[in-house]
Amino acid sequence: MKKEKIPKATIARLPLYLRSLSELAEKGVPVVSSYELAELSGGNAAQLRKDLSYFGEFGTRGVGYDVEHLLYQISKFLGLTRDRNIAIIGMGRLGPALLGYQGFKEKGFKITAVFDNDIRKIGKKLNNIEVLDIDLMEGVIKEENIEIGVITVPAVAAQQVANRLVAAGIKAILNFAPTKIEVPEDVTLRQVDLAVELQILSYHQTRKGAS
Amino acid sequence: MKKEKIPKATIARLPLYLRSLSELAEKGVPVVSSYELAELSGGNAAQLRKDLSYFGEFGTRGVGYDVEHLLYQISKFLGLTRDRNIAIIGMGRLGPALLGYQGFKEKGFKITAVFDNDIRKIGKKLNNIEVLDIDLMEGVIKEENIEIGVITVPAVAAQQVANRLVAAGIKAILNFAPTKIEVPEDVTLRQVDLAVELQILSYHQTRKGAS
Repeated sequence: MKKEKIPKATIARLPLYLRSLSELAEKGVPVVSSYELAELSGGNAAQLRKDLSYFGEFGTRGVGYDVEHLLYQISKFLGLTRDRNIAIIGMGRLGPALLGYQGFKEKGFKITAVFDNDIRKIGKKLNNIEVLDIDLMEGVIKEENIEIGVITVPAVAAQQVANRLVAAGIKAILNFAPTKIEVPEDVTLRQVDLAVELQILSYHQTRKGAS
Repeated sequence: MKKEKIPKATIARLPLYLRSLSELAEKGVPVVSSYELAELSGGNAAQLRKDLSYFGEFGTRGVGYDVEHLLYQISKFLGLTRDRNIAIIGMGRLGPALLGYQGFKEKGFKITAVFDNDIRKIGKKLNNIEVLDIDLMEGVIKEENIEIGVITVPAVAAQQVANRLVAAGIKAILNFAPTKIEVPEDVTLRQVDLAVELQILSYHQTRKGAS
């Protein structure tokens, strides 16, 4: 694997290639050209070849890429060759919805623990997993080897929860709370806000005179 | 309102200001400085002032912005002063999860219809809404005045569903299917992929040697 710095945009496209390769592997397709794989993944062939070259995959001219091999290489590169335990903090509205999202499990992300601070929720079972008291969070993260924290608490509580996750040793946070949170440089943070996406759509639609 | 072109990054920050302003209004705070509002929204004051100036809001030096007025201005600007009907297409795994996400309704997005092509799902009720046959989609979109289509079908079917939404007159699409889709220039498309976010986190974590 090359040691040079890989662009963030390339990293963000690798999961899309991975998805297409999984589909091809399931169908028993042994080899794929850069054109076909780019088409399936919604990119273009030149960019795909450049992206894959960063980690030493060049394909064979006129033949293409070995599907199973490339699938393994990308999975390994992204750290997906083993399952990762994730915790969801906040069982308000979105938390339980994510709990029902099987896509995580399929991709090797196991929801190992869920937390809330509401005594009406603590102890209840959602999708066969017990809601734990948030005061137990630090201990459970260590005991259960949880590596990724998913924040689904209200905006006002998000920073405090992030601080506690970081203090407990978590290095990867996915934040669904609609507020910006700060984390130390050695912690990776990704932000998702579903309503914001709809509000942005709403704006563009209004401008088009559809409103 | 100014007619000059507003940067996409500004549009994307407006919902964050809106969220903070809603919180302030709920607390009965009448006026907010650019510093306070930027802090609450996770930006900086200079950027906030520039963002708001695009649509003619300058605040009062030494006093700040009128919370209720600014809330109304941004809502109006984003086209959020009336409810919008949305349809979700695909009741596999994520679709029902989104149905349970109350955040849409709170922000004025009403899930008016949900569709699937699986006869085992059609006619069933999820969260008090009946799953309709996807073959009825075009008609229902027109009858129910649906403006935004949310795609939660498998990747292979996403483009076809998008094409049908566009043909039915939909100008705003939120795509959760983990594949790139193409839409005409007059249609706004936003892409969300939850597992990709986790895969990107996984990569960064692996590189840090935590794996």
